[in-house]
Amino acid sequence: MKRILSALIFSTLFFSIQAQQDKAFIDSLFHIALTNGRAYEDLRFLTKNIGGRLTGSPEAAAAVEFTRQRMEAYDFDTVWLQPVMVPHWVRGEQPEKGRVISSTFGTIELPVTALGNTVGTGFPGVTAEVIEVKSLDEVLELKEKDVKGKIVFFNRPFDETEFSTFSAYGGAVDQRGSGPAEAAKKGAVAVVVRSMGNKINEVLHTGMTRYQPNVPKIPAVAISTYHAEELSTMLKTDNELNIYLETHCEFLPDKLSYNVIGQINGTEFPDDYIIVGGHLDSWDLGEGAHDDGAGCVQSIDALRVLKLSGYKPKYSIRAVMFMNEENGLRGGRKYAELAQKYNENHLAAIESDRGGFSPRGFTSTGTEEQEKMIQSWAPLLIDWGYYDFSKPGGGADISPLAIQNTLLIGLYPDSQRYFYIHHTPNDVFETVNQRELELGVGGLASMLYLLDQNLEKKNKK
Amino acid sequence: MKRILSALIFSTLFFSIQAQQDKAFIDSLFHIALTNGRAYEDLRFLTKNIGGRLTGSPEAAAAVEFTRQRMEAYDFDTVWLQPVMVPHWVRGEQPEKGRVISSTFGTIELPVTALGNTVGTGFPGVTAEVIEVKSLDEVLELKEKDVKGKIVFFNRPFDETEFSTFSAYGGAVDQRGSGPAEAAKKGAVAVVVRSMGNKINEVLHTGMTRYQPNVPKIPAVAISTYHAEELSTMLKTDNELNIYLETHCEFLPDKLSYNVIGQINGTEFPDDYIIVGGHLDSWDLGEGAHDDGAGCVQSIDALRVLKLSGYKPKYSIRAVMFMNEENGLRGGRKYAELAQKYNENHLAAIESDRGGFSPRGFTSTGTEEQEKMIQSWAPLLIDWGYYDFSKPGGGADISPLAIQNTLLIGLYPDSQRYFYIHHTPNDVFETVNQRELELGVGGLASMLYLLDQNLEKKNKK
Repeated sequence: MKRILSALIFSTLFFSIQAQQDKAFIDSLFHIALTNGRAYEDLRFLTKNIGGRLTGSPEAAAAVEFTRQRMEAYDFDTVWLQPVMVPHWVRGEQPEKGRVISSTFGTIELPVTALGNTVGTGFPGVTAEVIEVKSLDEVLELKEKDVKGKIVFFNRPFDETEFSTFSAYGGAVDQRGSGPAEAAKKGAVAVVVRSMGNKINEVLHTGMTRYQPNVPKIPAVAISTYHAEELSTMLKTDNELNIYLETHCEFLPDKLSYNVIGQINGTEFPDDYIIVGGHLDSWDLGEGAHDDGAGCVQSIDALRVLKLSGYKPKYSIRAVMFMNEENGLRGGRKYAELAQKYNENHLAAIESDRGGFSPRGFTSTGTEEQEKMIQSWAPLLIDWGYYDFSKPGGGADISPLAIQNTLLIGLYPDSQRYFYIHHTPNDVFETVNQRELELGVGGLASMLYLLDQNLEKKNKK
Repeated sequence: MKRILSALIFSTLFFSIQAQQDKAFIDSLFHIALTNGRAYEDLRFLTKNIGGRLTGSPEAAAAVEFTRQRMEAYDFDTVWLQPVMVPHWVRGEQPEKGRVISSTFGTIELPVTALGNTVGTGFPGVTAEVIEVKSLDEVLELKEKDVKGKIVFFNRPFDETEFSTFSAYGGAVDQRGSGPAEAAKKGAVAVVVRSMGNKINEVLHTGMTRYQPNVPKIPAVAISTYHAEELSTMLKTDNELNIYLETHCEFLPDKLSYNVIGQINGTEFPDDYIIVGGHLDSWDLGEGAHDDGAGCVQSIDALRVLKLSGYKPKYSIRAVMFMNEENGLRGGRKYAELAQKYNENHLAAIESDRGGFSPRGFTSTGTEEQEKMIQSWAPLLIDWGYYDFSKPGGGADISPLAIQNTLLIGLYPDSQRYFYIHHTPNDVFETVNQRELELGVGGLASMLYLLDQNLEKKNKK
């Protein structure tokens, strides 16, 4: 709390003429975004005409071509594709099947969705007894004989008392990320994870899990929070009940795909860069509207709005659509690798990958001086709902740029709705509000402007 | 902007022991609201089992009984109904009809919804030429011969550059409120108003208009922003096109209805009151979820959360469900009238009637000292997303309490989504997010606590 407030207090008492000019220009950027924005219509195409964009899918390829065409149509100085080899995981034959088989309760349908990057069960699937745990630690403490041959059910809910639902997610997601590997070490045959979502409902949340070297790869699925509660209740009466799981997901050979990059050339230092981006791939269950179609179209529109304003940046500014954030981060890694290789000096990178909701601020990770500078801009943006500049963080795709000591920044929208939607069939265009999306565009364009005006060119070796 | 910031700076530098205790207690209230709230399930009943609650309708009567029963079930000290005679306007025979009849374009369906409190056209309706205006002033400047016998079409859009959509609404709504009366003075036979909503879509927004004494009452309807744009475009080519309108709305005789009040008795000053409320009636097109089922269930749950916390208020605290905010304000007026009559001393009144969205702060109208006091509480609430305490305002239902110099306070949620929903068929339960609603409950309970702790008992004459 003190950090939010000190950020707001910092540099407010003296609101200089420069700051007044900055504020007037920033207001004009928001006005363009709100009255002449293209992000919403671009998102409509990305979600409704293309749809979910799993890495390696035809939809992902269509999204590469669509964003390339849009940025060319918006007349950016250069638009190009950056090749990157990506993993190609497919969900396989549908429907995925789950059933509770109990001598007490009978056979009950259990809707499931395979976790990303998992192996399938194949036909006829896996049937086994279930052992419920709340944490990885609990698995570590179990004896191998109590786990061997069983399905481990991870059932720790979100902490609803967290204001930031990202914090609640962070407090639960180790079950999905590492649960299957840890359970496999004890001889489990499969894993069922409670969906990573707020409250109780029947929505399925997929998402990536990470196997470990020399540990068996076992199938893993998510069930809804509602069904997790039901299953837990049934286990209290019948702890010998079985679950049947059938999934057919698998990895195909790696594929060639692309990061998509649009650039406005810098007028003074064209070889130094400030970038803004999102990831073009999404999970397949929904349309990838908030995660992260929103971040992609916002990034493109932020550049377009700056162009329309007549502003000529000192540094080269790029919108980057990263590929494969969800199940590999290959695009983000490739981008940073090539930036190093070609000596592209990245002063700052902004990511929008927390949903297209009403913005509340920006996060940042840089030097103390840089973070204070960003916090000092709060008075310029608070009229547009941006008040919290206190938290650390950038974004997954831009994180590999840390090797260049790049200042990393993340758009920080209201998070209350995000984990009803994240990685689910609900992540569709209809859940995005046009004005909320556009307020994000205004903030990203403003942040690009402020960074361009205030960052010092780095001295390269 | 400066007012928001000074509010945040005020009293932050010294965070006293008292403030730390207040903050810990406030956090506990939010925790109860987020983990043990009932507002969301109560809203489900109010919207899904009861539905839209036009004043005088059977649904409004059901809502009176439902909220009375809920507050009794929550074991408030007293729960009662406060009788009030209310207007009984009905929309009448459906569907309401609108058509553009043009020699150039042919006949085109024009979806319409009658404005609240208007007279119907009856059958066979009204057919007339159309004159488009952007403002009341434009009508005042027109010659009577140019308006006589015509339909006046008010078509000024929202100013999308306003951050607060309530400000944008405030800048456009005179067309709906006074347009029909002003057009009638010049001899118009009917009025068509562009819906009071953001952006371009096919959603119909109803809402009240006000006739004037000794001015003919003419029918008036709203059309969607999309159809307003279409109609305006057609008028540029064919300015002799006609519109056909058919509505069957009318006033029936006034009816007996009720404000519903639940009370927790004060331990020190039981005859002094702090109240929190919303309005129970709604428009008929939707389910009255955000407007204002949300405010009702939040108010009830704020009292319930305070009770669960074990807090014993010094003053008596009431949750008030006002009747007839939308098309008469009879409930709000009756409540204040009886408060005066029975010498009920109202120290403060809080209203939640700006939608059940993610809160950003509170508005207040009181003495300068009172407003500064409220602004000084920002540091206690900022961790829960409440940062803006700078704006004036309370709420329509509590506004008549100004005769007691009551401190008036309004919950101030994010407004970006509200005017896609307000007074439309979209105002349904599914657009309400459980956590956002509950964060409002936490804030209302906290504000009740802070007021109870910090307000001085008024010296009555």
